[in-house]
Amino acid sequence: MARPFDNLKVVLVATRNPLNLGAAARAMSNFGFTHLRVVNPYEPAFREARSAVGASALLTGARDYTSVAEAVADCTLVVGTTAVGHRQLQHPLRRLEHGARLIRKQLASARVALLFGSEKTGLSNEALSHCHWLMRIPTRERHSSMNLSHAVAVCLYELARDAIAAPPQVTPTRATAGEVERITARLLEALCASGYVKPRAGAVTEEKLRRLVRRLSLDAADAEVLLGMLRQIVWKIGLSSSGP
Amino acid sequence: MARPFDNLKVVLVATRNPLNLGAAARAMSNFGFTHLRVVNPYEPAFREARSAVGASALLTGARDYTSVAEAVADCTLVVGTTAVGHRQLQHPLRRLEHGARLIRKQLASARVALLFGSEKTGLSNEALSHCHWLMRIPTRERHSSMNLSHAVAVCLYELARDAIAAPPQVTPTRATAGEVERITARLLEALCASGYVKPRAGAVTEEKLRRLVRRLSLDAADAEVLLGMLRQIVWKIGLSSSGP
Repeated sequence: MARPFDNLKVVLVATRNPLNLGAAARAMSNFGFTHLRVVNPYEPAFREARSAVGASALLTGARDYTSVAEAVADCTLVVGTTAVGHRQLQHPLRRLEHGARLIRKQLASARVALLFGSEKTGLSNEALSHCHWLMRIPTRERHSSMNLSHAVAVCLYELARDAIAAPPQVTPTRATAGEVERITARLLEALCASGYVKPRAGAVTEEKLRRLVRRLSLDAADAEVLLGMLRQIVWKIGLSSSGP
Repeated sequence: MARPFDNLKVVLVATRNPLNLGAAARAMSNFGFTHLRVVNPYEPAFREARSAVGASALLTGARDYTSVAEAVADCTLVVGTTAVGHRQLQHPLRRLEHGARLIRKQLASARVALLFGSEKTGLSNEALSHCHWLMRIPTRERHSSMNLSHAVAVCLYELARDAIAAPPQVTPTRATAGEVERITARLLEALCASGYVKPRAGAVTEEKLRRLVRRLSLDAADAEVLLGMLRQIVWKIGLSSSGP
């Protein structure tokens, strides 16, 4: 039997509390998800959770990354989770039920990263800039902030509950986050070279650009073509500028 | 506005861990439920959870009972929660989604008790005997035992998910066909100027490009930005090429 759930990577970014790491791993196991990735966890917490008596194989096998970019590089869809009503207006915001349906479709054929931010601050703008869209658990407006592991449990429950029903979809292969990041870098280069943005423009410019490229939701073939175009453009501008 | 959620009584039976009491109360608040009842909690745990710094009004206001019978006396429907496959064969067992629908109907006009057992043993046979039917969260058979507060969070999410009004969706305005066509033309110009395609390339090239740009499914704001980028790139290449 195919195991589409293997294609889901749960990515915990900057988690502080070891209990939450353990509890998130348990919720994953309850609903049949096995791939946990952590980005810059608070180190003592991660060590403690990993070495706790009874720590699951899932937790001890968690992969550790130093950036969101690395943690999602092999994924074709990157989805952030969020509490209601803050910065996410720059991203499409989907209710959990609807978002989970879209994720399930992707999981049939491609890797999806599902990001959860830190207990205090959620996902940073930098982390959000890697996301294609955001998903919101429908909590009350007046008390929207959930416990981190509860958020993981509820999202995975929603992903798992209809799993049997989803028919295999024929969809084009999406570009991986790594490919999309290469396009972003090359586009930034072209924009610097052409004077559209100042060389060494701030992180905000780069994040804006990253979000824009994600919104294009490229498939793998188009990404390849666009990368070739950008390479040629960068080469041409460089050639002309360094000309005689 | 009617508050049918006031009719739900979350009943935690013989809970041992103070962290679970606090976390369950938080999940209740997230999803808009306010009535917590506890039956024979492990006393030090209950005292600790209740007096913890930052304990919610919901937790400090929890009512304490010495028997399930008392705790559910004013309810017309009593539903137990359970892990898969044990004693519950004496009761109808409903999947969470289906059970939640039935509970929601009742809540419109009557009080419903939702029972959660202890972390170690779940609901006792005595506690089960007070239940009209049981509800099961669809966890994996091989790891069905959930964290208590996760079970509360997932059940209440399922009860609430259709009831809490969906926030207004911010869907970006799509780019018009005219805007998309302007991008196509400008991109073709950039590609000709850079040597990626031959000047006066055939209609096939242009059509391929047009299809590619359509696949990006641009919104209006992004289309505007992209057009600006392309204009600058075309200008820069032209300037350099026609240079001294």
